[in-house]
Amino acid sequence: MSLFPVATDKQALEEGDALSPRFDANGLVTCVTTDAATGELLMVAHMNAEALQRSIETGEAWYWSRSRKELWHKGATSGQIQTIVEMRVDCDQDAVWLKVNVAGDGGCCHTGRHSCFYRRQPLGRDAQRDTGFRPLAFA
Amino acid sequence: MSLFPVATDKQALEEGDALSPRFDANGLVTCVTTDAATGELLMVAHMNAEALQRSIETGEAWYWSRSRKELWHKGATSGQIQTIVEMRVDCDQDAVWLKVNVAGDGGCCHTGRHSCFYRRQPLGRDAQRDTGFRPLAFA
Repeated sequence: MSLFPVATDKQALEEGDALSPRFDANGLVTCVTTDAATGELLMVAHMNAEALQRSIETGEAWYWSRSRKELWHKGATSGQIQTIVEMRVDCDQDAVWLKVNVAGDGGCCHTGRHSCFYRRQPLGRDAQRDTGFRPLAFA
Repeated sequence: MSLFPVATDKQALEEGDALSPRFDANGLVTCVTTDAATGELLMVAHMNAEALQRSIETGEAWYWSRSRKELWHKGATSGQIQTIVEMRVDCDQDAVWLKVNVAGDGGCCHTGRHSCFYRRQPLGRDAQRDTGFRPLAFA
C-alpha cells in the first residue's frame, strides 16, 4: 500500500490540500534543504516515500542515499541532525523544501563544510574561453 | 564535443576549480533557484548542458523543460526573466544554485505565485492519521 495518495488531476495536484508526492521512475522526489536561520542553501538530496514519511513523523530529515541505496537519517553518525522547522512542497509536488536547524558542529556537506554549495561559477561571455570555462571560485 | 570537461576523479570533482557537471542519464542537472534579495526558494528545475552554458554566458536563467522537451528561456513569454546574481555548484556537481532577480511582475510559478513552494506540510506524529496526512496549509 502506498504511503501517500495519488492526485487524481492537475487541479488536485497543484491546488489541493493533500500531500500527493510525484515520485520519479526511481521512486524519489528532490529535496532542497536550507538553513532555517540564514536561508542559505545547504544541500540537495532525494527522498523516497519512507524517508518522506519518517521526516514528517519525526521532524528530522531522512533522505534516500542513492549511492548507498539505503535510508539515511542525516546526522545519525556525524551528530549533524537536521531538525525540520518547516516543510513545503512545490506546485507539481515533485520537490520538497526543508528549512532546518543543524545540530552538532552545524556542518552539512560530507567535505566538512557548512553547505555543499561552496564554489561559485563566474558568469558572462568572458566566463567561457576557447579552453573552457573560467575556474570556479571557492566561496 | 561536450561543452564541459569531465572530472577525472573525486578530488577534481569536489575540490577542483573546473566546472564539470555530472549530468544524469537524461543529460540533466538539478537547478535550485532562490530570490537573491530575500533568499526565498522560488523553484526547482533542470538544466541540460546547453541550458547551463547559455545561463553562464547570458547571465539569465535557461532551463530544460522536461514536459515540453525543449530549451526554456525563463520569462521569454511572461516577462519574468531571471537575472542571475550568483551561480554556485555543489560538492559532487550534480546540482546548481542560482540566486536571481526576477523581472516583470516578479512571479516565478506557473500558477501565478511568486514561489512554487506555497504549501506547507504539517509535521509530527499527529501529522499522520489513519486516513492519511494532515492537509497541506497554503503559506
